[in-house]
Amino acid sequence: MIRVALIGAGNVAIHLAKALEKTVSFKLVQYFSRHDKNNHYFPESVPQTSDIDSLVEADIYLIAVTDRAIQKVASQLSNRSGLVLHTSGSIPMSVLNSIKRHGVFYPVQTFSKEGTIDWKKTPLALEASSAQDMELLRRFASEISDHTYEIDSERRKKLHLSAVFANNFSNHMFTLAKAICDENELDFELLKPLIQETSAKVMSISPEQAQTGPARRHDVEVLKEQTSQLNVEQEKIYTLLSESISKRYRRNES
Amino acid sequence: MIRVALIGAGNVAIHLAKALEKTVSFKLVQYFSRHDKNNHYFPESVPQTSDIDSLVEADIYLIAVTDRAIQKVASQLSNRSGLVLHTSGSIPMSVLNSIKRHGVFYPVQTFSKEGTIDWKKTPLALEASSAQDMELLRRFASEISDHTYEIDSERRKKLHLSAVFANNFSNHMFTLAKAICDENELDFELLKPLIQETSAKVMSISPEQAQTGPARRHDVEVLKEQTSQLNVEQEKIYTLLSESISKRYRRNES
Repeated sequence: MIRVALIGAGNVAIHLAKALEKTVSFKLVQYFSRHDKNNHYFPESVPQTSDIDSLVEADIYLIAVTDRAIQKVASQLSNRSGLVLHTSGSIPMSVLNSIKRHGVFYPVQTFSKEGTIDWKKTPLALEASSAQDMELLRRFASEISDHTYEIDSERRKKLHLSAVFANNFSNHMFTLAKAICDENELDFELLKPLIQETSAKVMSISPEQAQTGPARRHDVEVLKEQTSQLNVEQEKIYTLLSESISKRYRRNES
Repeated sequence: MIRVALIGAGNVAIHLAKALEKTVSFKLVQYFSRHDKNNHYFPESVPQTSDIDSLVEADIYLIAVTDRAIQKVASQLSNRSGLVLHTSGSIPMSVLNSIKRHGVFYPVQTFSKEGTIDWKKTPLALEASSAQDMELLRRFASEISDHTYEIDSERRKKLHLSAVFANNFSNHMFTLAKAICDENELDFELLKPLIQETSAKVMSISPEQAQTGPARRHDVEVLKEQTSQLNVEQEKIYTLLSESISKRYRRNES
């Protein structure tokens, strides 16, 4: 059995603990968290420690803390002989350079405390400081997901950047849509099937092909009428995104 | 049997024809299209005409053409005694004022030629020029969907505006994400589970609660690093949306 220790107790750590329960050759032996407020999200059988120096020895240390805390955690693990992995999309592997064996295990997914993640379908971007550790990492990752990719720090940074657009910014569009609903006493339920279909479409056709709406149609009248209904912030966003859409589709269409 | 004629052969019309096939009391008797290139999407049993003046008499006329063509079609139907409905979110009902009995049947959904729509779950926003016709319209709509709403032109305009954010703009975020993937030889497949989860989340929690990412965390370092990787257009969008997110969450969080 390959022993895994987890550092962190946030959304990513919670779901990693669940993923580890389903692996065959890997076992979560302990997790580190300064507080115990999320303990109920973790399997009862796994002990917690709030002192990182008393963390048991493990074959793999998984750092699942906020980006800004990775460096500090890394410095506290520099004497460990196991493979130390961070799970961040935007932080280069080199942040772990002070540790002999290190790498990255980045799940391309968004995590909430509640709800379940389909780990088997979640892409994992992997990087390791040696070929031998890449082998261990790949074995570990493939017990969690059917979709593992070897991606270096530079390209992972780009992947994370694209994920900001795909997830953070699209979700913010839902927030802005809901705000317009709220202002006009329209039930956000009205938009849910549309939101579902928006994401369902790009599973089978490209987002370019899926694009519809007044900006794509260059429907100047609707664009003008719609901007007139918006507040300053909404209008700025509406105008910039409509221009971006119009420009993209100008050349390809009649 | 209540007779329905359909004007248009685009994406909305194609799916309306399919919806009508499943109704009990309504029957699609004919559809009007200037061309016959989409005929294979319609049930073979339903005759097409390319001359709107020779359209058969019907109890309901459903106008499913592009916004800009609605007025012209309306003028060609002004002598009809049936109920004339348009299907647009942004066009007021008054565009049909020259027709005695008129109303609006707006499905809050995005339609592609291919694929199927779950009409039972698709919200329908309804408006009619008389209480009597609202009754007929409600009866018609409730055979198509389980979610019918009476919404006047002014609020429907707001609903359509919010749908532009929820669908057109979020889809454009997927396009921008894919462009970053393409530029860096990253497979867009890497983002698909994330996109699915993004929309799945807002089915059960609000988009505000679902928001994650560097702008929400006020992670200035990541924001700065990410803008440095973008071209001028991408950077403008990234900065404006990050500011919008940061501003929204500033007050509510520690």
